[in-house]
Amino acid sequence: MTIQTAVLIETLTALGAEVRWCSCNIFSTQDHAAAVIARDSASVFAWKGETLQEYWWCTEKSLGWGSGGGPDLIVDDGGDVTMLIHEGVKAEEAYEKTGKVPDPTSSDNAEFQIVLTIIKDGLAANPKKYTKMKERLVGVSEETTTGVKRLYQMQANGTLLFPAINVNDSVTKSKFDNLYGCRHSLPDGLMRATDVMIAGKVAVVCGYGDVGKGCASALKQAGARVIVTEIDPICALQALMEGLQVLTLEDVLSTADIFVTTTGNKDIIMVDHMKKMKNNAIVCNIGHFDNEIDMLGLENHPGVKRITIKPQTDRWVFPDTKTGIIVLAEGRLMNLGCATGHPSFVMSCSFTNQVIAQLELWKEKSTGKYEKKVYVLPKHLDEKVAALHLGKLGAKLTKLTKDQADYISVPIEGPYKPPHYRY
Amino acid sequence: MTIQTAVLIETLTALGAEVRWCSCNIFSTQDHAAAVIARDSASVFAWKGETLQEYWWCTEKSLGWGSGGGPDLIVDDGGDVTMLIHEGVKAEEAYEKTGKVPDPTSSDNAEFQIVLTIIKDGLAANPKKYTKMKERLVGVSEETTTGVKRLYQMQANGTLLFPAINVNDSVTKSKFDNLYGCRHSLPDGLMRATDVMIAGKVAVVCGYGDVGKGCASALKQAGARVIVTEIDPICALQALMEGLQVLTLEDVLSTADIFVTTTGNKDIIMVDHMKKMKNNAIVCNIGHFDNEIDMLGLENHPGVKRITIKPQTDRWVFPDTKTGIIVLAEGRLMNLGCATGHPSFVMSCSFTNQVIAQLELWKEKSTGKYEKKVYVLPKHLDEKVAALHLGKLGAKLTKLTKDQADYISVPIEGPYKPPHYRY
Amino acid sequence: MTIQTAVLIETLTALGAEVRWCSCNIFSTQDHAAAVIARDSASVFAWKGETLQEYWWCTEKSLGWGSGGGPDLIVDDGGDVTMLIHEGVKAEEAYEKTGKVPDPTSSDNAEFQIVLTIIKDGLAANPKKYTKMKERLVGVSEETTTGVKRLYQMQANGTLLFPAINVNDSVTKSKFDNLYGCRHSLPDGLMRATDVMIAGKVAVVCGYGDVGKGCASALKQAGARVIVTEIDPICALQALMEGLQVLTLEDVLSTADIFVTTTGNKDIIMVDHMKKMKNNAIVCNIGHFDNEIDMLGLENHPGVKRITIKPQTDRWVFPDTKTGIIVLAEGRLMNLGCATGHPSFVMSCSFTNQVIAQLELWKEKSTGKYEKKVYVLPKHLDEKVAALHLGKLGAKLTKLTKDQADYISVPIEGPYKPPHYRY
Amino acid sequence: MTIQTAVLIETLTALGAEVRWCSCNIFSTQDHAAAVIARDSASVFAWKGETLQEYWWCTEKSLGWGSGGGPDLIVDDGGDVTMLIHEGVKAEEAYEKTGKVPDPTSSDNAEFQIVLTIIKDGLAANPKKYTKMKERLVGVSEETTTGVKRLYQMQANGTLLFPAINVNDSVTKSKFDNLYGCRHSLPDGLMRATDVMIAGKVAVVCGYGDVGKGCASALKQAGARVIVTEIDPICALQALMEGLQVLTLEDVLSTADIFVTTTGNKDIIMVDHMKKMKNNAIVCNIGHFDNEIDMLGLENHPGVKRITIKPQTDRWVFPDTKTGIIVLAEGRLMNLGCATGHPSFVMSCSFTNQVIAQLELWKEKSTGKYEKKVYVLPKHLDEKVAALHLGKLGAKLTKLTKDQADYISVPIEGPYKPPHYRY
Repeated sequence: MTIQTAVLIETLTALGAEVRWCSCNIFSTQDHAAAVIARDSASVFAWKGETLQEYWWCTEKSLGWGSGGGPDLIVDDGGDVTMLIHEGVKAEEAYEKTGKVPDPTSSDNAEFQIVLTIIKDGLAANPKKYTKMKERLVGVSEETTTGVKRLYQMQANGTLLFPAINVNDSVTKSKFDNLYGCRHSLPDGLMRATDVMIAGKVAVVCGYGDVGKGCASALKQAGARVIVTEIDPICALQALMEGLQVLTLEDVLSTADIFVTTTGNKDIIMVDHMKKMKNNAIVCNIGHFDNEIDMLGLENHPGVKRITIKPQTDRWVFPDTKTGIIVLAEGRLMNLGCATGHPSFVMSCSFTNQVIAQLELWKEKSTGKYEKKVYVLPKHLDEKVAALHLGKLGAKLTKLTKDQADYISVPIEGPYKPPHYRY
Repeated sequence: MTIQTAVLIETLTALGAEVRWCSCNIFSTQDHAAAVIARDSASVFAWKGETLQEYWWCTEKSLGWGSGGGPDLIVDDGGDVTMLIHEGVKAEEAYEKTGKVPDPTSSDNAEFQIVLTIIKDGLAANPKKYTKMKERLVGVSEETTTGVKRLYQMQANGTLLFPAINVNDSVTKSKFDNLYGCRHSLPDGLMRATDVMIAGKVAVVCGYGDVGKGCASALKQAGARVIVTEIDPICALQALMEGLQVLTLEDVLSTADIFVTTTGNKDIIMVDHMKKMKNNAIVCNIGHFDNEIDMLGLENHPGVKRITIKPQTDRWVFPDTKTGIIVLAEGRLMNLGCATGHPSFVMSCSFTNQVIAQLELWKEKSTGKYEKKVYVLPKHLDEKVAALHLGKLGAKLTKLTKDQADYISVPIEGPYKPPHYRY
Repeated sequence: MTIQTAVLIETLTALGAEVRWCSCNIFSTQDHAAAVIARDSASVFAWKGETLQEYWWCTEKSLGWGSGGGPDLIVDDGGDVTMLIHEGVKAEEAYEKTGKVPDPTSSDNAEFQIVLTIIKDGLAANPKKYTKMKERLVGVSEETTTGVKRLYQMQANGTLLFPAINVNDSVTKSKFDNLYGCRHSLPDGLMRATDVMIAGKVAVVCGYGDVGKGCASALKQAGARVIVTEIDPICALQALMEGLQVLTLEDVLSTADIFVTTTGNKDIIMVDHMKKMKNNAIVCNIGHFDNEIDMLGLENHPGVKRITIKPQTDRWVFPDTKTGIIVLAEGRLMNLGCATGHPSFVMSCSFTNQVIAQLELWKEKSTGKYEKKVYVLPKHLDEKVAALHLGKLGAKLTKLTKDQADYISVPIEGPYKPPHYRY
Repeated sequence: MTIQTAVLIETLTALGAEVRWCSCNIFSTQDHAAAVIARDSASVFAWKGETLQEYWWCTEKSLGWGSGGGPDLIVDDGGDVTMLIHEGVKAEEAYEKTGKVPDPTSSDNAEFQIVLTIIKDGLAANPKKYTKMKERLVGVSEETTTGVKRLYQMQANGTLLFPAINVNDSVTKSKFDNLYGCRHSLPDGLMRATDVMIAGKVAVVCGYGDVGKGCASALKQAGARVIVTEIDPICALQALMEGLQVLTLEDVLSTADIFVTTTGNKDIIMVDHMKKMKNNAIVCNIGHFDNEIDMLGLENHPGVKRITIKPQTDRWVFPDTKTGIIVLAEGRLMNLGCATGHPSFVMSCSFTNQVIAQLELWKEKSTGKYEKKVYVLPKHLDEKVAALHLGKLGAKLTKLTKDQADYISVPIEGPYKPPHYRY
């Protein structure tokens, strides 16, 4: 719920939608943006610095259209609303069949326990709430790598309950927001949180996907010496071609000054890693959930002491060595927690994709074009998103002649590339 | 036929192949490499500085296994051999049906006239030559964007005569050879041909695909001010995000010092463009055929005067202005014509893909796995190519835990990315 | 008065000094840093967001050691305290001779009127205040280009009242703080103030000295297209060699998105320029005083409307066009006004120079080594500053052999370069 | 004796000089350039691939104006002619006093033995040759760091025989030729000599002066991981600020792929270092004389085997390990030996300085302005050199107003910077 999201909400409202909104991250809400939207445009359930309990309360409230109501469309970012509805439906089906309610203690994961509790608590009063919701739902458009991964898993398992458009894999999203957005917002977050001079420092970027590429590029250009960790040999070779060293995390624990996780995976930097770091090493995550960094292990480490330098910037001191590390945004997305997220221009690309996806889902709601599967936007719409952003930057496109278009077998007006083209 | 190709030939020979070889470019043969291969490993039909007539004579000779013979597999680069066989079969079928032989004058294209002449001249003596050849052929692996485009067109038209593996679209080819290869070899060619100082100059890169990205990056890093021309709004927006200006060719004719075509299309820089350029502007092509630059128009321009500074570096002086432009490699690929092509490391990635594709086609020759279609290599082989090259550069990969692999739903040993992943 | 200055004060205090402190910029004080110093270490006269009146009140107060007292040494930054004392002495001499007090209305400059008023107001009560002060003073060390310029002018005019060490021209100051400091803090200030995406934008850097070089480098690396304005052909040629375009401000008024002044001169961006800029063009100064930007002209422009987006970020709307520009930090140093100034590592280099200069002045206070002139630190001390900072970054120096040192005629332990060496 | 030098000779000739020319490097002559000059403009004593014996024969011949003659002015590059005359005069003085001739065996240095032999051999026949020469000589202008160092040593010792202008320390020389020239010509030399892919490689740059900065920048931008060795803590800190690692040579012997010396010192890479390098590590010098690399130690290493891959590219195989290193240009300047030296634009800056210095020396030959000391060109001439080169790159300078010029105390027309300014 940043100012960019606010403009998205205003856009959807201008297009005729009635919008209810919650945040996707406990730290990312810009309260001034939320306030304007609450006043003018939509119901907002979000504020900066929610507890997890509050976060899920907000998420549920954002679905509360009142009796018989519910959203027609979901604009998702991380997939939490989509997951809540799917878990809700699953619980309602089990409840109907067996009368059993979900058992929060069945999960190890503290956050998932909250989700189950919310579902459990509503079940008796409204045992068809999520089921009715999914029946009404025309579809979801999802913009994150992580959210999309969940959708494809559900598609593979046959459990996806409504059509989904994968906005993340529009070129104008994944190759822009993830790459150029993070190239901007990683140093922004680092500087706002710590004022550290990046030049001369050794920085480790865990993961060299689009987000990692953006981060490594920003750090290198700011004068850091960048070391990448990777599991994928292709991405590793790309890092090498840019002059970056590729090592394992263990190799660099005692020498690096800045650690950034960008993997979209979990358990990347564990408390045992953190204990071996230099005093005042900076540890942050710009990839995905806070489980990229072992926050649980850190919090539960015997004798560890947390000193809050300022909100979202904590120094954690280990009892044996008396040395401490600086953890940003409690392990959550540091660009949202410590800075203001991605800048408007790149978010405009992402959100143009979202809006186009919403329009497409709604237009085709009765045609059966979209089944309970995951779709990407057709390339001509992807190119349209880009074309809409060129004028602002003063660019002039070249036009193909008919002859040239025929020569390379594309329509004059595009799309210009085959689906597998990688940009 | 560079030293890298020579090592590819030695590799194929060591794997048991009997190899016959021709070049894909009239200027690219390194005679010392050809000589070693001719002595030790294979029949070579290539030398530096062929005429077009000689080029196609070589191409035909490379197929000459003697009566009843022909290649089992083709390693193609640009698709000329594949095209010759397809045209040959077409002519033989027409000849069988109608007795008509191909008419070279039916084409405007001087080079294609030579192709048709070669086919025509052999038709009476051996009217089933190419037909027998295609029957024997197990398949082709093709490594260029241009060659692959032809293959997909034939697949679409239903005219493809044998299976094809598109090696160009392996990540470890298109995102390495095209990008990092050209980043190396464009300045190399410029420097060897002209000794021009790139810093401070205005350079225009026509096209911002993988080749254009590599070229623009190299020129920018060498201190040029780079301007990009593009038809595709997505690629144009990528150029802008890197700080490059996007304009049309007409906008920059009178101010730019260096022009590079990378489009894979034709008619990019026409003679009317060239006449408006600064004196001693450098014009070169690293994209595809010499028709990116209007060499025909230039040669036929009334009163134009060609002054050969040294082989592959010509100054063309226009009669009205007395100003001249420097054209490299007669409009053909300047990195092959004026330098030594791409360096070994990146060619090793490309050729490892070629070798793996050849092994795959041969292994499956009787299984029917490959139909008369175009295939890309499976991702695990693409990752294997990368993995084979990491050790040389001192990289250490991180290993997924079982838990992490499950969390992101990939096998521990890969492949790690979905097919649509763009790297 | 940033946290870095606080550590400088603590250092001086630890070395035995009694410190009184004021700020050099009305916006740059970090109140938390000031609070800690006021509590623990020194008298502080500074807060974020002073008026000019308050600023000079603070400056005068910082000199108030009580009757008969005054500073032994000055650590100056911009030269305002040094200027106040010199103006004070000048006024006292005139007053003694002629009985005339300074006339604030004799100056056009609003700020200088305040200075004269302060001197005038104190003159009757204490007509020898500044004269006694200068007699006590051992010297000043000054760290800015602007302050140093004033010192050399006074030296040339024969009006310099006490010895001065030019810390700005230590290599470890001017080539570090000015260059790398601004490379860090310019984008930091831009991002904190405006959240603008720098990639894809056209940025104009006025001046390509050390500060301009740092700014241009940062903007280019963040993906902007950078255009430089320069008066000095050598610096202009340096910009060109880095691929930057060199134009005049007039050439780019209507196309640029971001304007940064770094000249150390005045009247760089005038209100007539600002009127011709794009809507929401960003205008800021990181060079020197707020007179690089014509703030007076802007404020007095008929019908102009100032809309404060947030502190230090104002949108100024012109009545005719209804378009507005965004001015940062009211034209004052934007890295101090909108961000937190330079990061600690680079300030440590600068302040180590300051401390060494203070120690040197004090050590030599009775030896006559330093006359009423401007001195730079000897090179071996400059090298010492650098050497003290290498360990933090993990660097290992190579040692000359005796033979090698003799060969290039330097001592084994340095200094290694002749005085004119430019680094 | 490159094509750029040829244009310099033509320029001097057009200005009225009678020119005799020799090379400063046994490998750097471009024979086609030498041929044209020999035909049209001057006596040339230089060819590509001289022996040391031939080199000094050429050097002496270039001074041979016939009986009673000799040069009025010297344009020197490295200082060999200047050194020969000084050694000649010294020998002649000793011979006159004592009748003793120089003893070549008194030196360990093979090259200096040749110099002494040449002097000795001419002494009997013409015992005043160099003495008369120095009496006629108006002065020398010298353009290299190394040559200038010798001049300052002679000035310090009081042995300098005629005025010298240090052209190397013009900003438009040392900060352009050394920096941007090497940034261009180092990768050029590497690519022409070895075709090695620079991306992904580990490159060590010994020395981070202007030449080292240019080399490191070029290698980094081409995708290498660059490690710097330095003795000077200031230069080391500059390297760190650019994200380069600073280590000792010993730290990286077994991991680096490319070694470049740029120090201007001797004994940088010794044979014991070379033995510990990776197989096919590339070793080259772009700094100064071939003694940066221990060529003598390498040649004399027991059992070492030299395999000439092509001229100026040798593989040296060590007997114990059977591994070999690639040495470029026999340890001499690799950009001259393996490529074509610096490009014309940057040499034009350097040579404009040379021409201006020659004109200045000649104009003042009778005024006594220049004593037997070393001078740098005044800043306004340095700025003039830059200004003369801006138009070619399309730059537009900004003009100071009178008011602005006064404000910063410089003339409107420059010079704009104090002498100590570092650019």
